[in-house]
Amino acid sequence: MSMLVVGSVAFDTLKTPYGVREKILGGSATYFSLAASLFTKVRVVAVVGDDFLPEHENVLKSRGVDTRGLERAGGKTFHWGGEYGDNLNEARTKFTDLNVFESFQPKIPAVYSDTQYLFLANIQPELQLQVRERMNEVKLTGGDTMNLWINHKRDELIRTLAKVDILLINDAEARMLTGDSSLPRAARKVMEFGPRSLVIKHGEYGATIFFRDGSQPFRAPALPLDEVQDPTGAGDSFAGGFMGYIAGEDRMDPRVLRRAMFYGGVMGSFAVERFGTERLQTLTRAEIDERFKVFRSITHLD
Amino acid sequence: MSMLVVGSVAFDTLKTPYGVREKILGGSATYFSLAASLFTKVRVVAVVGDDFLPEHENVLKSRGVDTRGLERAGGKTFHWGGEYGDNLNEARTKFTDLNVFESFQPKIPAVYSDTQYLFLANIQPELQLQVRERMNEVKLTGGDTMNLWINHKRDELIRTLAKVDILLINDAEARMLTGDSSLPRAARKVMEFGPRSLVIKHGEYGATIFFRDGSQPFRAPALPLDEVQDPTGAGDSFAGGFMGYIAGEDRMDPRVLRRAMFYGGVMGSFAVERFGTERLQTLTRAEIDERFKVFRSITHLD
Repeated sequence: MSMLVVGSVAFDTLKTPYGVREKILGGSATYFSLAASLFTKVRVVAVVGDDFLPEHENVLKSRGVDTRGLERAGGKTFHWGGEYGDNLNEARTKFTDLNVFESFQPKIPAVYSDTQYLFLANIQPELQLQVRERMNEVKLTGGDTMNLWINHKRDELIRTLAKVDILLINDAEARMLTGDSSLPRAARKVMEFGPRSLVIKHGEYGATIFFRDGSQPFRAPALPLDEVQDPTGAGDSFAGGFMGYIAGEDRMDPRVLRRAMFYGGVMGSFAVERFGTERLQTLTRAEIDERFKVFRSITHLD
Repeated sequence: MSMLVVGSVAFDTLKTPYGVREKILGGSATYFSLAASLFTKVRVVAVVGDDFLPEHENVLKSRGVDTRGLERAGGKTFHWGGEYGDNLNEARTKFTDLNVFESFQPKIPAVYSDTQYLFLANIQPELQLQVRERMNEVKLTGGDTMNLWINHKRDELIRTLAKVDILLINDAEARMLTGDSSLPRAARKVMEFGPRSLVIKHGEYGATIFFRDGSQPFRAPALPLDEVQDPTGAGDSFAGGFMGYIAGEDRMDPRVLRRAMFYGGVMGSFAVERFGTERLQTLTRAEIDERFKVFRSITHLD
């Protein structure tokens, strides 16, 4: 089924222990779209500037992503600069040039109105809520957020969470949002704001999905990787694999959710193997299924 | 089969967000023995002082632990004082009164000489090596260590590792021992020192076992627990469950090792539910098997 992602399409300038890259394609909606496109039909709503060239858009289009929702504004594309040290779990932001993203007002093309699955990538919570209210017919809404909104737009974020079915955040965000250092307790508090499931991502340790109805959580591993060349986009790729698989199956029972957690981990593991979206661009479904088997074998008793 | 643990039997004075306890039974060999005793016959070698009363020894004896290797020295028992804040992953040491433990020279009773499985809990690496050399007939040796020895007795530790089959350490120790921030790479470097398997414990995220022969690692979860009353002894209880299960099965094939990882996690999860050894003292094999099923269901796709 069709999946719409609203978020950022951006350029990243990156430095990691494995090298540097200048102004390469990035952004939450980009990583999400590329990862989800391996599982389902993806539509994107985002804003880019004059410096966003056909070659950049073609990265999305060549994976079948519907880019009719990609708005072109006068000015420059959102550009983030970051650096990772030996601890690849933590990015140091060097600069954040919001550019055209600063005044982003998501416009949903009429042709997108039959979308059934929605993902609100990490943008201002008010904008997430606006999109959510305009897409009132969707079957399922997933969402992401970040420390900036938790700290500075808390009320708006909590209003948005009331309309999100599955939230995907990391350990630090779960603790920050609830003030609780215990992840299972923090999870329960987050779900009291609205979401019926919460995925907490633990970086190299995998991710856990919690359920508001009290059913057992489920833990998916991450792959122990020798070389993480660039962690940028790991979380968005996880979300793309997770939501994309659910939309592809068009069901949300425990069987599908468990596999979605694994596919999320699989997509995250591919994303970080190369800089930027490089690895996701060439990825095949056969490679994904191969790695899914590895995820199974490193966690299953038999 | 019989399992011998050499380590500390001690008193702990603890403060956690859930309360305080003074001079309760603790020590690496104590937690290890109690956990392993649910799976196999356990023998212990350690030193205690005059203040170690029959009631303390009875905690071990009542679980069938052979305490003939418990040496009584004149003086006081090793006493550790520690405190945990909201972040239960990190203990702040308040005091370390080594007392009789300072001049500990492990003496292996002659009746222990037919022991088949050996665990060198966290003591000075030279002492670990001495014990290992005296127990040259064992089938399998497991070991633990800590930051103190990694930093101050590195050469001695590396000599000891050459004689250890399976080392169990945590993330920080693996990184400290190798200077490598990537766990899979650090694991390979540790195994170059000797161990053919390495278990890296990730605290609340579970644990991973790596193999020197290059076969796929295996990840066991930890249980997402609402209340961790006292994390003391979690690692030693993990080791007790892990090694105890292997000794009980008397085999070390992949099937057994995977289950051993789960049983390690299970025993760690019980240990932290109550202060000190309280929970381990009353634990039944039925409760363990029940929780094993939970561990399976939170990780297995079907």
